[in-house]
Amino acid sequence: VDCIGLGIPVHHIEALLPSLLDKLKPSQVVFDVGSTKLSICESIQNHPKRGQFVAAHPLAGTEYSGPSAAFEGLFQNKKNIICQEQLSSPQALEMVLELFDSLGMQTMFMGAADHDKHMAYVSHLSHISAFNLGLTVLDIEEDEKQIFNLAGTGFESTVRLAKSNPHTWAAIFSKNSKYVSEALTSYIGHLQVFKEVLDANDNETAIQLMQRSNEIKRVLDGIKLNRVKLS
Amino acid sequence: VDCIGLGIPVHHIEALLPSLLDKLKPSQVVFDVGSTKLSICESIQNHPKRGQFVAAHPLAGTEYSGPSAAFEGLFQNKKNIICQEQLSSPQALEMVLELFDSLGMQTMFMGAADHDKHMAYVSHLSHISAFNLGLTVLDIEEDEKQIFNLAGTGFESTVRLAKSNPHTWAAIFSKNSKYVSEALTSYIGHLQVFKEVLDANDNETAIQLMQRSNEIKRVLDGIKLNRVKLS
Repeated sequence: VDCIGLGIPVHHIEALLPSLLDKLKPSQVVFDVGSTKLSICESIQNHPKRGQFVAAHPLAGTEYSGPSAAFEGLFQNKKNIICQEQLSSPQALEMVLELFDSLGMQTMFMGAADHDKHMAYVSHLSHISAFNLGLTVLDIEEDEKQIFNLAGTGFESTVRLAKSNPHTWAAIFSKNSKYVSEALTSYIGHLQVFKEVLDANDNETAIQLMQRSNEIKRVLDGIKLNRVKLS
Repeated sequence: VDCIGLGIPVHHIEALLPSLLDKLKPSQVVFDVGSTKLSICESIQNHPKRGQFVAAHPLAGTEYSGPSAAFEGLFQNKKNIICQEQLSSPQALEMVLELFDSLGMQTMFMGAADHDKHMAYVSHLSHISAFNLGLTVLDIEEDEKQIFNLAGTGFESTVRLAKSNPHTWAAIFSKNSKYVSEALTSYIGHLQVFKEVLDANDNETAIQLMQRSNEIKRVLDGIKLNRVKLS
């Protein structure tokens, strides 16, 4: 083969990559598509064949996993991230870029630590939020059997990621523990402040906090606009 | 008019309802569509014209508000809740049921306190979760300008409700403060346990918690199945 792609849980990528690189012929390239990048890059940072590896993270997928979760157009107009591109050989980088280009993806370059920090906030935290929202409402279901008859599309939307694969996500949280813990501390802090404000019946401050959060409109509209521009 | 529907923030419904009932002719009916029910029902529980009022909550809508947020089929195959139906006159109940039936909704009956408790968990908590996820990531954006370039569909899904109207939701949280505070305490507790588990790098427990949360699949599949059955 010319090119090997690793799409397995991140701790397995890290465990497998050094010995896989050992076995590569000079013309062969390996890339990964794991959701964390720093510890994977560190696992082979001094490997003599580091240039034959490209660290990638295509930002595409759903709460479902495995081959049956694939669908046509899954990658179209989505972002791909490549980390430490300066440590990949120009040939390896070109081969992998060509592959992601052909899927209709737009590739961005960034540092591995920056990638992991950003992902902690805009992806990993969303999963933790959904998993724990699921746990909270499943608790109450034990006494209130009919509760889910009342669940609407808002609940569906916020809890959707709670269907994600526990083994995949345990590995991601573990390999990105520093930034995930930081993001989660910040989130819990915001929730505690919000609770104090509600408990004090301080509507004015509650409104101010929600108005600030409304700025997310700008962000989400930006995401959509960008997809349109790409298509 | 034969029938008046109140679709305004819940504290305004509560403030307006007694004087509106005062003015009703014997043949006229008023109903509300507010997201909380207990304090609204209490505001007119001893009113001599209580029978001319129907307390309703159609579970339909998006994160957008106002007339421009309406679309065809918004109510089709969705649930409607009527509380304290035994305190409405048979004529008033029939008139309002006919209206929701004609929109394609399925009406359920339940107590006002039960309604408010259930909604705290399957609707109000989702909004608090999204508002605070928005605040957490907007904080980090101050230092990391490019962070939202990396936001994917998972983030969009969990944060979508953060676009909701702050005045509407401040009123809902305030009028359902007991159950909202209870739900939020439980949610924060789950997040704190999850953080301790991650910080201890206890992958086995993390996986168990996420597997338990995966049960939400059954719930969400049930919601979809029910919509299909209704249609």
